Amino acid sequence: MRTMSAIDQAPAAIQFPTLAPPRRYLFGPGPSMVHPHVYEALSKPIVGHLDPYFIQVMGDVQQLLKPAFGTSDGATLVISGTGSAGMEAAVTNFVEPGAKFAVFANGYFSDRLTEMAKRNGANIVRFEKPWGETYTDDEAKDFIQRERPKAVAYVHAETSTGALQPGHAICAAAHEVGALVIADCVTSLGGVPVEFDRTGIDIAYSCTQKGLSCPPGLSPMAMSPRAMEWLRARTTPSRSWYLDLKLIHDYSTVSHRYHHTAPISMFYALREALLVIADEGIENRWERHRRCHKSFVKGIEAMGLSLFVPEPHRIATLNTVRVPDGIDEAKVRKHLLDGPGIEIAGGFGPLAGKIFRIGVMGPLATEDNVQFFLTEFKKALH
Amino acid sequence: MRTMSAIDQAPAAIQFPTLAPPRRYLFGPGPSMVHPHVYEALSKPIVGHLDPYFIQVMGDVQQLLKPAFGTSDGATLVISGTGSAGMEAAVTNFVEPGAKFAVFANGYFSDRLTEMAKRNGANIVRFEKPWGETYTDDEAKDFIQRERPKAVAYVHAETSTGALQPGHAICAAAHEVGALVIADCVTSLGGVPVEFDRTGIDIAYSCTQKGLSCPPGLSPMAMSPRAMEWLRARTTPSRSWYLDLKLIHDYSTVSHRYHHTAPISMFYALREALLVIADEGIENRWERHRRCHKSFVKGIEAMGLSLFVPEPHRIATLNTVRVPDGIDEAKVRKHLLDGPGIEIAGGFGPLAGKIFRIGVMGPLATEDNVQFFLTEFKKALH
Repeated sequence: MRTMSAIDQAPAAIQFPTLAPPRRYLFGPGPSMVHPHVYEALSKPIVGHLDPYFIQVMGDVQQLLKPAFGTSDGATLVISGTGSAGMEAAVTNFVEPGAKFAVFANGYFSDRLTEMAKRNGANIVRFEKPWGETYTDDEAKDFIQRERPKAVAYVHAETSTGALQPGHAICAAAHEVGALVIADCVTSLGGVPVEFDRTGIDIAYSCTQKGLSCPPGLSPMAMSPRAMEWLRARTTPSRSWYLDLKLIHDYSTVSHRYHHTAPISMFYALREALLVIADEGIENRWERHRRCHKSFVKGIEAMGLSLFVPEPHRIATLNTVRVPDGIDEAKVRKHLLDGPGIEIAGGFGPLAGKIFRIGVMGPLATEDNVQFFLTEFKKALH
Repeated sequence: MRTMSAIDQAPAAIQFPTLAPPRRYLFGPGPSMVHPHVYEALSKPIVGHLDPYFIQVMGDVQQLLKPAFGTSDGATLVISGTGSAGMEAAVTNFVEPGAKFAVFANGYFSDRLTEMAKRNGANIVRFEKPWGETYTDDEAKDFIQRERPKAVAYVHAETSTGALQPGHAICAAAHEVGALVIADCVTSLGGVPVEFDRTGIDIAYSCTQKGLSCPPGLSPMAMSPRAMEWLRARTTPSRSWYLDLKLIHDYSTVSHRYHHTAPISMFYALREALLVIADEGIENRWERHRRCHKSFVKGIEAMGLSLFVPEPHRIATLNTVRVPDGIDEAKVRKHLLDGPGIEIAGGFGPLAGKIFRIGVMGPLATEDNVQFFLTEFKKALH
C-alpha cells in the first residue's frame, strides 16, 4: 500500500489499553500453545479469497491434513468456523431430517451432537453410559445391529472426560448395516493417531487449537469416498447453507467458485501449523505426546493422585485427574492462573468439581514442561 | 513456554515453500487492506477462551462496535464465522419455520438470504427488482403493508451491484405490522454510516474484512432491544446450535459460560481494527471514504467510463463501473493482478462481464491510492 496518512495522523486511543495478553501456559484441554512460526504466518499480508495464491494455500492445507487424519483417498477440507461448526457440518450434511441417528453417549460432546441432530429433525437413538466410560466392540456391534441406523456418531477423544473410544468395531458394524460413521476428532487430531482410513471413519471433524497447536477458528474435516458419494447423491439441501459441504467442497477443491470469504489469515496459520507437524513427523509427534503422558501420569501418581479414566482408555494429550478429597478445584485453578499463569480446566456436568482437565500437547509436550507443570500443580494443591 | 526442543530440532520442510504471499493492492469488494497494527495484534500470544483477559477483549469489541453500527441501546456481539455465518445466524434465529419472511430482492445477497430462509422452512415472499435497482419509500411501505410478514430483510449495501438501500421506510413499515427487520450490512459497516438506531434496524450483521479493514473470519452483529426481547420469548430452538444467538449472547455477554472456543486471535485483530477506527473517528472515516469515492468517480468519468448505479444510490466504498464495449473484463482483471498486483472483481449472475467491482476502502481510501489505481486501471484497459 502506498500511504495511509489519514490513519497514521490519528491520535492514540485513550479509553482502551494496548492489546497486551498476559503470558499463559496453556495446560488446559485447548486452546494449546502456538508455535512462533504460526504467529508469524498469521501476520503475513492477506490476499483475496479467490486469489490463485490463496487457492494454493487451501490446497496445501488439504494435502497436509491427510497424514494427520491418516487418510489417503479421503477428501479433506476446512470449515470456516470452530470445531463446533465442524460438528454441525457433519450432522447437517449427513443426517437427514427423519433419519435414524445412533449416538454413543458417554460425555458432553455426544450430548452436543445429540442436540444438533435434534435441531436437524433426526430420529435419535442413544447408547448411554456414564461420563468417562467407553464401549466394548461387542457392545458397539449389538447396539448398531439392533438399531440399524442411517448414521452413527461417536466421540473419538472426549474432551469432557479424557476417554478415548476406539472406532474399528463401530465402523465395521455401521458399514454392515449401510450406515455412515461420524467421528468427533476435535481433541485427537494432531495429538494422537486418528487412523481415519484404517478405522473406517466416514466423516471426521476436528479443530485447530488442540493437537494442531494453532489458534482456534477453523475446523478441518475428512470424508471417505463413501461419504462423498452419499453427499453427492443427497437430493435435499442441508439445513445450513453456511456449512453446506457440497458448496464448500466445490469452492475449496473443485471449481474454486465463490461460496464465502474464507478466513485467509487463519488458513495461513493452519498451513504453518501443519508444516511444523510435518517437519517433526506425525508419528514422532504422537510418540512425543505418549512419552510426556507417561511421565505426567507417573508424576501425578507419585503425588498420591489418580487419573479418572482407566489406563487403556486414556487420551495421551488430555489427562483427567481426580480432585482429591477436601480440595476446592476452582481455587487450585485460580491459584495456577493468577500465580505462574498456568491454565487448566475443571470438570463440568456430572464431573463438576470432581476432575481437573490437564492438556499436555503441542509445544508444551516436553519433559521439562511436564516437570514444570507438576511442580506448580503440587504447590497449588497445598 | 520454557522449551520446545522437540520441535526446534526438526528438519526444515522441503515439499512446501515458506509462506510468502504476493503483495496485493486489494481494490476488490473485500477483503480489504489491513492496517499493520491489526497484523501485530493477530500475532500476539493467545489466552484461553474463558480467560478473564479474553472476556475483557470480547467486551471491548462489543463496546467498540456500537459507534460503528450507530447503536446505543442495541446489543452487539460477534459470530465465530464469516459474514455469511452472520447472515445465517440472523435468519435461523429470527425467522421461524413457517413464518412469513419478506425479502427485498435486488441482488445476489438477497438471493442468498432467500436460500437460507428456504432451508430454514420460512414462507418467503419476495419483492423482485432487477439487480442494481433500489426501492422507494412508497414501494417498501406498500409491499410490507400488503404482505404483513413476521420478518423483513433487505441488503443495505449490495456487494454484487454497488447499490445502497436506505432502510428508514422499510423499518417504519415493518414495525407498523409488528415485523422485525434484518439488514445485511456486510459491505457498509465501518465504511459508510449504518445508523442502526436511527434507521430502526432490529438485526444487523456484517463482516470484518470490508469496511473494518480486518482479515475475514468473524461476523459482528447488532440487535435492537425489540429483537432481544423477541429472541428471549422464542420457545422453539433455532435450527442451528452453532449460530444460536441466545447461547452466544450468554457466552459473550452474560454468564461467559462456555459455548464454543472463540477464535482468540481474530478477536484480537478485530479489537485492534476497531481501535484504529476509533482513533480516526468513525465520522472522519466515513468522510474520508466519501471524499475518495468522489475523486474515484471523477477520474472514472474523465476516462469516458460510467458507473452502473445512479448517483444517489451508490455505496461510497464499493464502486461498480460499466465494462466498456469491446473490453474483456476478465483480461483486465488478470492484467491488473499479474502486473501491479491489484485485485478488483468482476460482476456475476446477470452482471457477469458487465461491470467491474472496485472497492476503495480502509487504508487504500486516500487520494494518492485512488490516483495510483486510476492510472493502473487506465493502462490495463488499453
